[in-house]
Amino acid sequence: MARAHWGCCPWLVLLCACAWGHPKPVDLGGQDVRNCSTNPPYLPVTVVNTTMSLTALRQQMQTQNLSAYIIPDTDAHMNEYIGQHDERRAWITGFTGSAGTAVVTMKKAAVWTDSRYWTQAERQMDCNWELHKEVGTTPIVTWLLTEIPAGGRVGFDPFLLSIDTWESYDLALQGSNRQLVSITTNLVDLVWGSERPPVPNQPIYALQEAFTGSTWQEKVSGVRSQMQKHQKAPTAVLLSALEETAWLFNLRASDIPYNPFFYSYTLLTDSSIRLFANKSRFSSETLSYLNSSCTGPMCVQIEDYSQVRDSIQAYALGDVRIWIGTSYTMYGIYEVIPKEKLVTDTYSPVMMTKAVKNSKEQTLLKASHVRDAVAVIRYLVWLEKNVPKGTVDEFLGAELVDKFRGEEQFSSGPSFETISASGLNAALAHYSPTKELNRKLSSDEMYLLDSGGQYWDGTTDITRTVHWGTPSAFQKEAYTRVLIGNIDLSRLIFPAATSGRMVEAFARRALWDAGLNYGHGTGHGIGNFLCVHEWPVGFQSNNIAMAKGMFTSIEPGYYKDGEFGIRLEDVALVVEAKTKYPGSYLTFEVVSFVPYDRNLIDVSLLSPEHLQYLNRYYQTIREKVGPELQRRQLLEEFEWLQQHTEPLAARAPDTASWASVLVVSTLAILGWSV
Amino acid sequence: MARAHWGCCPWLVLLCACAWGHPKPVDLGGQDVRNCSTNPPYLPVTVVNTTMSLTALRQQMQTQNLSAYIIPDTDAHMNEYIGQHDERRAWITGFTGSAGTAVVTMKKAAVWTDSRYWTQAERQMDCNWELHKEVGTTPIVTWLLTEIPAGGRVGFDPFLLSIDTWESYDLALQGSNRQLVSITTNLVDLVWGSERPPVPNQPIYALQEAFTGSTWQEKVSGVRSQMQKHQKAPTAVLLSALEETAWLFNLRASDIPYNPFFYSYTLLTDSSIRLFANKSRFSSETLSYLNSSCTGPMCVQIEDYSQVRDSIQAYALGDVRIWIGTSYTMYGIYEVIPKEKLVTDTYSPVMMTKAVKNSKEQTLLKASHVRDAVAVIRYLVWLEKNVPKGTVDEFLGAELVDKFRGEEQFSSGPSFETISASGLNAALAHYSPTKELNRKLSSDEMYLLDSGGQYWDGTTDITRTVHWGTPSAFQKEAYTRVLIGNIDLSRLIFPAATSGRMVEAFARRALWDAGLNYGHGTGHGIGNFLCVHEWPVGFQSNNIAMAKGMFTSIEPGYYKDGEFGIRLEDVALVVEAKTKYPGSYLTFEVVSFVPYDRNLIDVSLLSPEHLQYLNRYYQTIREKVGPELQRRQLLEEFEWLQQHTEPLAARAPDTASWASVLVVSTLAILGWSV
Repeated sequence: MARAHWGCCPWLVLLCACAWGHPKPVDLGGQDVRNCSTNPPYLPVTVVNTTMSLTALRQQMQTQNLSAYIIPDTDAHMNEYIGQHDERRAWITGFTGSAGTAVVTMKKAAVWTDSRYWTQAERQMDCNWELHKEVGTTPIVTWLLTEIPAGGRVGFDPFLLSIDTWESYDLALQGSNRQLVSITTNLVDLVWGSERPPVPNQPIYALQEAFTGSTWQEKVSGVRSQMQKHQKAPTAVLLSALEETAWLFNLRASDIPYNPFFYSYTLLTDSSIRLFANKSRFSSETLSYLNSSCTGPMCVQIEDYSQVRDSIQAYALGDVRIWIGTSYTMYGIYEVIPKEKLVTDTYSPVMMTKAVKNSKEQTLLKASHVRDAVAVIRYLVWLEKNVPKGTVDEFLGAELVDKFRGEEQFSSGPSFETISASGLNAALAHYSPTKELNRKLSSDEMYLLDSGGQYWDGTTDITRTVHWGTPSAFQKEAYTRVLIGNIDLSRLIFPAATSGRMVEAFARRALWDAGLNYGHGTGHGIGNFLCVHEWPVGFQSNNIAMAKGMFTSIEPGYYKDGEFGIRLEDVALVVEAKTKYPGSYLTFEVVSFVPYDRNLIDVSLLSPEHLQYLNRYYQTIREKVGPELQRRQLLEEFEWLQQHTEPLAARAPDTASWASVLVVSTLAILGWSV
Repeated sequence: MARAHWGCCPWLVLLCACAWGHPKPVDLGGQDVRNCSTNPPYLPVTVVNTTMSLTALRQQMQTQNLSAYIIPDTDAHMNEYIGQHDERRAWITGFTGSAGTAVVTMKKAAVWTDSRYWTQAERQMDCNWELHKEVGTTPIVTWLLTEIPAGGRVGFDPFLLSIDTWESYDLALQGSNRQLVSITTNLVDLVWGSERPPVPNQPIYALQEAFTGSTWQEKVSGVRSQMQKHQKAPTAVLLSALEETAWLFNLRASDIPYNPFFYSYTLLTDSSIRLFANKSRFSSETLSYLNSSCTGPMCVQIEDYSQVRDSIQAYALGDVRIWIGTSYTMYGIYEVIPKEKLVTDTYSPVMMTKAVKNSKEQTLLKASHVRDAVAVIRYLVWLEKNVPKGTVDEFLGAELVDKFRGEEQFSSGPSFETISASGLNAALAHYSPTKELNRKLSSDEMYLLDSGGQYWDGTTDITRTVHWGTPSAFQKEAYTRVLIGNIDLSRLIFPAATSGRMVEAFARRALWDAGLNYGHGTGHGIGNFLCVHEWPVGFQSNNIAMAKGMFTSIEPGYYKDGEFGIRLEDVALVVEAKTKYPGSYLTFEVVSFVPYDRNLIDVSLLSPEHLQYLNRYYQTIREKVGPELQRRQLLEEFEWLQQHTEPLAARAPDTASWASVLVVSTLAILGWSV
């Protein structure tokens, strides 16, 4: 798991927002938040003065004859992580939370955000801004109808509204005599001017063949073959998500935090390939790799990123049908394609193909997980020695595990911001320590580490929870129930094409049994040096059905507000299951290779099947990671691994439960009520 | 389970259509189906000549200037079972299958139906009709666009298209220059004329207070209170489903097969109650019971059934907002209410309230299940004695179990057509024997009985599968896995407001484990002398979340095509679960009280928890049904019950699985790969 943004892979934001604890501010007697009801208003030092920029924005609005202007929190590609130059909502409001929409009228300015961010917004926004504690487009439109006159024009940047979001604004405003106005020049950018951080401009590079599952030519042919087979015979596929273009051409860069992508679009037609990006970022080798000097069906013509809308519009003049994945295409593209020339699916063929890893991609992803386990084990061994000294804090820990990962072969940085959370902090959703604000690790508390790496061969994401002292019986029970959930889902056999939503409750049953639960999703897809939350694989209702070759995380948890948090997250490959009777069945093969904390396992809660599964898994860890540790002469770590993967002893069968069967049977024979 | 019709409670039709076996015709060398490619065409005797009626229908179409006319398979209330006078599609086509849409143009006539009915359609339709082996509105519209000219008008009866269906036709035809035309006079009825069976006209009666959970006045007040609390402040609720009006007023009749309803609508406003029905069907007592002679807010004004559209239209002229459940409202009502005066939810407040039974309704429903168990047990005892004689067939069996039910107190007939299926017939979806076509029951075969009763206090639905001889090991394994699925779901503890879809896989896991599965849903709601498939409770994706006080069936199965079928169906009440840690958790309390067939249970597959659950359940059956059998002096049945509810012996724990844990552990210690 990781801190998830609205957008690209928003897999658990909504669930978390309601069911988890959230960081509570240190109580400063109210002095850390603004008070706009006094005269003059009280503004903490954390507040940003937005008067000048609002005035400038309203001038721009006036030029466009707008009554209101919408400033969303997205970028043009629904990225999970947003580049600084795209942080328009944060810049104009002062409020830096990852979710929240701003709307400015000629007289007022307002932000809508969810409960995770209410306090943060009150600390960061000055009194120019109203805070609305709601989400979704409906409350925004309701407010707009009272704030702007009939006939008013509501401006928006069409590259910042998804098709769905635009439709919901449009629907809500229908018949209201207020007009949605698409303005391709972003007004905040005009005001931001030279202060706006530059768009990244690092080289875009091709992955070495050793790290790719297929050549880009093979991928292009595969997509074209899907176009030909499609009932509606699209003549082109348009790719808007950065991961789509990165995957298709085996190209990477570092424009986005944690995601090795670059700003781009692709228009792949039956006879041409157009890649929209900044041409100056390609080396001559890369241009040659892309066959960019020719114009045939297997030549990648580079066009400027800013030309995409005009180019699509021009292409759409012909007798064409453009296939788009509606979940990642913004209104700015959608509005220039006549409806009858659109072929729409929720996910593009690239998204659907990428979801199923071929055998080389599987091998690559697995290999990255072996090295990732080495980094995590090095960190756990280090913690075991150093936490008792009282010198380790969460932030230092996060830095260290990132450093260990960085030392692994093919490393390309963390795959998301490391969640390093001690004691009660682990019960907070989206918690990450900072240099200034963090907690000491202690042998008296549980510690949760949720982290992952980007490697040229794969992306990783693993969560382990540990306790170096004496956990309470409840902590052990909760941990073991989370573990049982992880095992029950991991070993489940289910029919091919079952949706994750239908089976994710197996990860919860052991918790439910005792009246416990967790308030987030159970897992998400993951890529080969791509997204750590790779849509559309996972266990949510809008994920696609499970198929052989997909990778997903499996990550049940339990959170005791104000006390501790547990999460056990592994990445697993969907594989064919061998069943007694023939049929097309699937199961999971876990590819994360770090042992669980035996100090927290209550073996008496495990069934023989759980123990058997666990000991097989430990055996696999030894086989996969042991030799790697030895090869690297990490002997202390090797020793630690052997200790922590000792087979768990099978306790005598639970005679209590058998006894109760006998008692019930006997009473039943006697005709007593039980 | 029961033979389900498109419409009111279409809970498993779609699933069944693809995953189950279907009755195969006896091979008559092709002579039982039509052959329209010969000259003259070959028509079996089962075919209906439709030339005259089609000619007459086309005359009616010409009068209305229509190019095409749609004839759906529904009635005006989305009833699961359709009255004969509403079998318009069957009458005009000759094809009597329960699902299928007909469309007539000036030159052609066509039927679209699913694979269950292809052979039947070829046996019953003459060569005036094309058979299209597709479902849904899209193929119909695609065909229409080639068959009727631009500018063509497509007529339909607005009372036979749901809002959703109308919208899908409308959407598909948009921009095609073909117009959907709503015609309130049904053209088939005009042609059918005096031959059309009469609309039922039996008395509509009030339930005795002993059989109702609340008075109609209490229910009316409850709905009005929900109107007041609703954010959009509806001034009226419109009820279109027959079960809604029957439930609201505690009225019943027998217009529909198996459902004790009468043709009606209700418009419940904040200050009046209008019941649209045939006034002559109410006795003076019933009119008095309804306070029908006054006009105040607690007086039920009876208006004629045929007036509903005009009355709603007139009411909608005022400053009103009409709350409808969109899933049961037909376009004929919807189109006369201005959009801004509609308050729409998927289900009306009556549907939502009815889904949760109050404590008296729970007691009533449970009591009906005790008497229902007596009838089923009488039948099972009779079978045990008579099947070995070789004189029992499926049809005789179905008649007998219906007769036994009929002898129970408060009986009001079967709640659906009894499925009495021996051997391979049990693997067929929707199989019911007829007097002419049935199979002998035998000690060498399994037998599946899925049946239920209507009683004044409740509706029942139970399935048991039995074998009187020596079942094969595979039959026992499959039966036991189905039983484990039933138990695993029945004993599951889950958070309040969990949707059934999220947990229904627990009923499948034991089957999946071995590569087995079933192709239908896992359960449906059930009413108090109402629908046997009571929407919106159940385990499908469009069912509402589980809540305390709901009743649902739990009915996993397994079907071996051409050999046998197993289904174990119980009705269960959703109750609060006591969990170790406090929280709002639910579980099921099974209220069907007929033991499973111990001849088919392989105890070695059951865990201690399964056995404990089963023996408790058997103890409950003894307590509930035993005294009733004794009171009725059904001593043979009492004896049978005692035998069949003997506690199942706890086998020694499965040492094999423990041994394997030890082996794996040992090998792991030795560092071997397992």
